[in-house]
Amino acid sequence: MSDLPEIREGEVALPRDPSLEPDAGVVFIGRIHTPWQRGDCPRNIAMAREAKPDTWIEVKADFVPALAGLDVGQPVMLLYWMHNARRDLVVQAPRHRSGPHGTFALRSPNRPNPVAASTVLITSLDMEAGRVGIDAIDCFDGTPLVDIKPWLPTIDNPPA
Amino acid sequence: MSDLPEIREGEVALPRDPSLEPDAGVVFIGRIHTPWQRGDCPRNIAMAREAKPDTWIEVKADFVPALAGLDVGQPVMLLYWMHNARRDLVVQAPRHRSGPHGTFALRSPNRPNPVAASTVLITSLDMEAGRVGIDAIDCFDGTPLVDIKPWLPTIDNPPA
Repeated sequence: MSDLPEIREGEVALPRDPSLEPDAGVVFIGRIHTPWQRGDCPRNIAMAREAKPDTWIEVKADFVPALAGLDVGQPVMLLYWMHNARRDLVVQAPRHRSGPHGTFALRSPNRPNPVAASTVLITSLDMEAGRVGIDAIDCFDGTPLVDIKPWLPTIDNPPA
Repeated sequence: MSDLPEIREGEVALPRDPSLEPDAGVVFIGRIHTPWQRGDCPRNIAMAREAKPDTWIEVKADFVPALAGLDVGQPVMLLYWMHNARRDLVVQAPRHRSGPHGTFALRSPNRPNPVAASTVLITSLDMEAGRVGIDAIDCFDGTPLVDIKPWLPTIDNPPA
């Protein structure tokens, strides 16, 4: 656990890491490639976009046929796995927020299931290589990818 | 596998269910309660909203402190586990679409990681019971919940 963030004042951890007894398994369908490493990652996706990074998804060969029907310019929701996160924190005190907050009121990577979601634009598609260019994302190079979904306003926007 | 959907014409399945060798584990943080069972579930969330259903999330006791900071009226993204889905289909031919499509170009529950995402409104909050009312959702009663995130337009809307 030495690579995980330390617990800060006001934070609450479960007595036992819940991920030790999983209810289901996820498979990594590929990796996200970004210029970012620990220490130089933008704080949010808006800042990542300003940097105009070279960012792409590499999909594993088995899953390449599942890309058929996606288009350049299309918005997609990516689900990805924040594999350096703590999974036992139910209350957190992020540096950029005042006071502690419940994990489900935050977008922190530290959560029982460290699945992050971001909506991005497809900028290129190479079906032979299984390579999907995206406009930007604020995660480390090599982050495991869990899903790609077409972004649909009727499902992904709050009701009017 | 007998409870899973059958493979239709034009669909492509992997030779081996990828979930047999998971890369990481998810924990179910609670359940979604809806009026819907197999056979009477609305086809999409817009149709579920028209029915004005009594719908709520029941969060397991361990995770109730993680709700602190959420508010009634707030939009949240729910991630939930479509536990009756097939995980081996890379190309699918849904009844309501013409021709086969890649799984990542569809919102079908059948996907390598059957994590669905919907954005809903919080309609009530009972922190003692760990019960969060939501406006509607189009999943079966008892669907396992994986995450609750505050919906944020900067992350969840496509870039302008």
